[in-house]
Amino acid sequence: MTVEDALCDGAQRRACPGEGGQCIGFEVERDIVKELNGKLFERHGYWTGIKKAVTPFPKRTHTCGELTAASAGSRVTLAGWLLPERKVSKSLSFFPIKDSSGTTQLVVHRNGDEDGNLTALSAVPVESTVLIEGKVRVRPEKSRRNEGTGDIEVQVDNFTLLNPADQNMPFLPSDNRTLVNEDLRARYRYLDLRRSALSDNLRKRSQVARVIRNVLHDQNFLEVETPLLLKSTPEGAREFLVPTRVGRSTTPTPGQEGPLFYALPQSPQQPKQLLICSGAVDRYFQIAKCFRDEDGRKDRQPEFTQIDLEMAFVSWGQDTVASTFQSDQWRIGGHEVRDTMETLIQKIWQEVEGVCLPSPFKVMTYNEAMTRYGSDKPDTRYALEIVDLATLLPSQVRHSLGNLGETLDALVVRPSQSAAFLRAAQECDIADEPTVRRVTLTDANIQTWVSNSGMADARISMDANDHAALNEALGVSCGCTIWLSRRSSPPEGGSTALGRVRTRVAELAQTLGDYTPSEAPHFLWITEFPLFTRADSDKEFLARGRWSSSHHPFTAPMWQDIEAMYAGQVEDVRGQHYDLVLNGVEIGGGSVRVHDAAMQEYIFSQILQLSDSEMSSFGHLLHALKCGAPPHGGIALGFDRLMSILCKTQSIRDVIAFPKTSAGTDPLFKSPAAINKDVLHQYGIEPR
Amino acid sequence: MTVEDALCDGAQRRACPGEGGQCIGFEVERDIVKELNGKLFERHGYWTGIKKAVTPFPKRTHTCGELTAASAGSRVTLAGWLLPERKVSKSLSFFPIKDSSGTTQLVVHRNGDEDGNLTALSAVPVESTVLIEGKVRVRPEKSRRNEGTGDIEVQVDNFTLLNPADQNMPFLPSDNRTLVNEDLRARYRYLDLRRSALSDNLRKRSQVARVIRNVLHDQNFLEVETPLLLKSTPEGAREFLVPTRVGRSTTPTPGQEGPLFYALPQSPQQPKQLLICSGAVDRYFQIAKCFRDEDGRKDRQPEFTQIDLEMAFVSWGQDTVASTFQSDQWRIGGHEVRDTMETLIQKIWQEVEGVCLPSPFKVMTYNEAMTRYGSDKPDTRYALEIVDLATLLPSQVRHSLGNLGETLDALVVRPSQSAAFLRAAQECDIADEPTVRRVTLTDANIQTWVSNSGMADARISMDANDHAALNEALGVSCGCTIWLSRRSSPPEGGSTALGRVRTRVAELAQTLGDYTPSEAPHFLWITEFPLFTRADSDKEFLARGRWSSSHHPFTAPMWQDIEAMYAGQVEDVRGQHYDLVLNGVEIGGGSVRVHDAAMQEYIFSQILQLSDSEMSSFGHLLHALKCGAPPHGGIALGFDRLMSILCKTQSIRDVIAFPKTSAGTDPLFKSPAAINKDVLHQYGIEPR
Repeated sequence: MTVEDALCDGAQRRACPGEGGQCIGFEVERDIVKELNGKLFERHGYWTGIKKAVTPFPKRTHTCGELTAASAGSRVTLAGWLLPERKVSKSLSFFPIKDSSGTTQLVVHRNGDEDGNLTALSAVPVESTVLIEGKVRVRPEKSRRNEGTGDIEVQVDNFTLLNPADQNMPFLPSDNRTLVNEDLRARYRYLDLRRSALSDNLRKRSQVARVIRNVLHDQNFLEVETPLLLKSTPEGAREFLVPTRVGRSTTPTPGQEGPLFYALPQSPQQPKQLLICSGAVDRYFQIAKCFRDEDGRKDRQPEFTQIDLEMAFVSWGQDTVASTFQSDQWRIGGHEVRDTMETLIQKIWQEVEGVCLPSPFKVMTYNEAMTRYGSDKPDTRYALEIVDLATLLPSQVRHSLGNLGETLDALVVRPSQSAAFLRAAQECDIADEPTVRRVTLTDANIQTWVSNSGMADARISMDANDHAALNEALGVSCGCTIWLSRRSSPPEGGSTALGRVRTRVAELAQTLGDYTPSEAPHFLWITEFPLFTRADSDKEFLARGRWSSSHHPFTAPMWQDIEAMYAGQVEDVRGQHYDLVLNGVEIGGGSVRVHDAAMQEYIFSQILQLSDSEMSSFGHLLHALKCGAPPHGGIALGFDRLMSILCKTQSIRDVIAFPKTSAGTDPLFKSPAAINKDVLHQYGIEPR
Repeated sequence: MTVEDALCDGAQRRACPGEGGQCIGFEVERDIVKELNGKLFERHGYWTGIKKAVTPFPKRTHTCGELTAASAGSRVTLAGWLLPERKVSKSLSFFPIKDSSGTTQLVVHRNGDEDGNLTALSAVPVESTVLIEGKVRVRPEKSRRNEGTGDIEVQVDNFTLLNPADQNMPFLPSDNRTLVNEDLRARYRYLDLRRSALSDNLRKRSQVARVIRNVLHDQNFLEVETPLLLKSTPEGAREFLVPTRVGRSTTPTPGQEGPLFYALPQSPQQPKQLLICSGAVDRYFQIAKCFRDEDGRKDRQPEFTQIDLEMAFVSWGQDTVASTFQSDQWRIGGHEVRDTMETLIQKIWQEVEGVCLPSPFKVMTYNEAMTRYGSDKPDTRYALEIVDLATLLPSQVRHSLGNLGETLDALVVRPSQSAAFLRAAQECDIADEPTVRRVTLTDANIQTWVSNSGMADARISMDANDHAALNEALGVSCGCTIWLSRRSSPPEGGSTALGRVRTRVAELAQTLGDYTPSEAPHFLWITEFPLFTRADSDKEFLARGRWSSSHHPFTAPMWQDIEAMYAGQVEDVRGQHYDLVLNGVEIGGGSVRVHDAAMQEYIFSQILQLSDSEMSSFGHLLHALKCGAPPHGGIALGFDRLMSILCKTQSIRDVIAFPKTSAGTDPLFKSPAAINKDVLHQYGIEPR
């Protein structure tokens, strides 16, 4: 006796609409039920549908996205979610049946008593899981679709209800026309995920993770898991703490005065450096979970994933010692990191997008990026470059600005060259950029536009001749729109005022439909960042003195600047840091690390002026450097951001199975939540 | 000018032993240093060695484990850790150079002034990282080794000191003869990891993870990351909590009365079920981090890794409906899970061990395992089976035991059959098993051994004839050693008293050298566990009534037992749970889940008698089941344990890069640690 014979016989297949139209069920041995626990079952209808749902059923032969004309004539068993019926006539209906691989069209012929239970299929609620048996047929020519299972349909001769869907679901994921509000979708994420738009993203994410691992394994990287229960560090302003009962219940640590905590890592930076210092692993990678406790940041998640790697014995290339500077040169260490990342990115784009990226990726120094684009992550898909007017200004103006440590930037939209940005240039609102002035050149102001820009003071005094010379050098004439802004020179921070205007103009032009970014992705390395930044309120940690690390305190200086560093010219020191930028979005960054213990100690104590306790929390790293640590470097790529770009989603939430809201809450699991005081006491803590 | 020319010229290569014999350095521009920060550098020797370590150096051409005779004659550059010199003569030395891929023998000929800096190599501390250049030579025949780079050596003509090792390192990882104490190795894990024994384990772990992912991807599994910041659940006795600032700094949640917490998952059980319920993913897997806050358990880690998978539409096989019971039958659902796991395990053993495992794996019911081996994870590499004497005893004895819900177990070591266990049987200490009696049969006791075993009461009264019949049926004679124990029938829990004795005898026999387990691994599925267990103090959660779930509350009953469950015969209900056992170690377990919301609700409320608040924490799962959840099932494999078996290590700590001690502490990162009160206040908590 086969499974099917034993359990799916005709008698048991008869469907009977459940009580109150809410449930679809099958006749079951209600006698037993009533006898044993009558009241309960009567009230809740516990047995409704059970007989079908929990006892053996046939095994599916194919997924719903798999069948082609090659299977025509064969008998198949499919399992999936039933989508809304399309009734063609009294005796003929079509039903789509869907699973995560695709959708198959079911054909149901009803002919009264002889159709077995097929009539009952119409009573099965949409989104129920069913198992159907039938024969594959090639569709009539005019009904064929040129994608998925569009060549075939399955003529159903039998079905089994696996699990009925509630008829009052909060929304129907199969309804493509109306997308209900985000709160409801977040709360019922398991329904929202049933939409192909989201399930396709999860599939692509898994595919990309696989490509990443294959590329890195093939390049002799080992994947190593680093601890998530780590120690709170001085950078830990945004860390999550994890109280533990360790040592409480059994052997209290001598001298232990209060509760003990682990901390979740913001990145595996220290473990991965220690791993490389150990020599156990020559090339490390990990697709690693990281954590940051901050809210209110746009499209950030408290837990996020990064593609993290680190390599021993990273080295140098020809550009490193070139005596004259040329654009597009990689003059720092970490060549192997660069090569690995470019191979990785190229392989991803090839496999997922079918695009062959140009090689190698362009390289630009921080200074060049800031000067030409006003951003350390410039979108180079559109030209619209900023001009540093320093060399074009009259010498006395140039000098007086120079004495202030300033220069004058201009961003020009010329009707002849930048038609796409013309309308946006006029309409763009720059009220929140107080240092920026906009001028549209006319006959009336063409000889006064700098002097009268409203930002001129005695130092920027230019007469008509000066203006004429500048206009010619700059190549501007009536009709041009120009933004002007004074800025510090050399540039500081992540963007200049005109860099922000440049971005805003392009965004507006895109919104207006005047400008469409090129399809081809623009990858760009930014290198030679300042190693130290003047400390500001944003960087209160690890920065007791005047200086903080621009990225992190383990980044090595460029070798050309080491002497300057020891000579106290901190602001002149460039780091061996590299950011990878895609279409104006920073998708990753890394550096060659300090491997010399003495240098690391000098940076900690003399430049960053760490306290003793801050220093001591790096004690193990300093000691590891002293035990023959190899030169090393690495990088981390934001996996969520990368997937969001590859899936063309508005938010990284759309590429994460169970994301948090922008406020850090999870409406599905209802976290975070309050915890009972008694439980907290086990950890030695209590609400304040 | 090449990098090498520019930076590694002869003049700079001159080595000079550092001050006090502590450091090895190179002459550098000390003038600059003194002028700028003289005192600091003088005191700490900051510049020592810097010039070499942080400026460009040549790129290595090979790793230290890569060269073969095929490269003879070529010039190579290697980078790695310098191991102790073997001085053959005044002018000839051998040095091994090591990296994570292997070791290469360096040959150094010193001939006074003409050898460049080679004399200085002897002054470089062991475990320093160096870069050497030289020529590959085939070794003289008598010096060849038949493994790794044993055919060649490299004649060095130049070296660069990349980073000197401190001469007072806490221990030398390259010293294979003395393994320093575990505390010291844990504190300096980055040195311990340099030992090949540990780095080989990390390499194998990465390799196995790759095999796992490839097998599962090839079977259409998607890897999906589930949240680590989840919500505390009622099972959460051993959970880690994570306080968060979410909602504190910006918009306080209305009605929020205290601090809010996430919780770290003990397993991704609920997210993975919701994922499958969503239909977004047909087959899910994840190599997932899990967390458990408990200490004092042998060889457990507070964070551990599991190979986690879940499949939609799992189905049934032929055995399911077989009318007569036969051993080795899989009579529950989840066939696809079984097939996937067997494929996975077979592939791992094939790739890593080169072993082709028999297929399919054996299957045994819980009842059979407990009766024959006294364990729900029996080691079947050795026979030594337990005998349930029920059918061999005189009927009145059998009946009176039966009335008590008991039976009498015997474990027999026969000199003729179990020579390997004979000595252990005599020496084994069973003082801590009060229900067990040991008898060695002699002429004096052969007709009284049951009655006089000390466990006999009026119910076990047997005369000489009864004994003679039993002896014959049991096949025992003088010289046999027999353990006797009364136990509950049917068996309960994870082991019986004689099961524990059986294990102990085998362990002792192995220690004594009498018994060597077979090389071939014994994989075994255990199925048909009791779905519910009488609640005891160990399972205080989710068990307000008499019953708790043997595994977890989402496990589906066997369909054959559903009616019994609804009829209140809770103790008779067997679950669709399966454990995978290897050589007596449980390496994984899983089940077919309840997908019927009404049944799940019945189990929660009627059997487990959950409170309303406990129920409500499963609200999202119950609702997901109502939205057309497919039948589904899954499994989780302990990855650390699996790797420990594959790497033949004593502890899972040896297969984890940065493990915690058995007390849950991390002597390297010094976690867990106390946290400043001010920081705690940001989370709304304080020490109690």
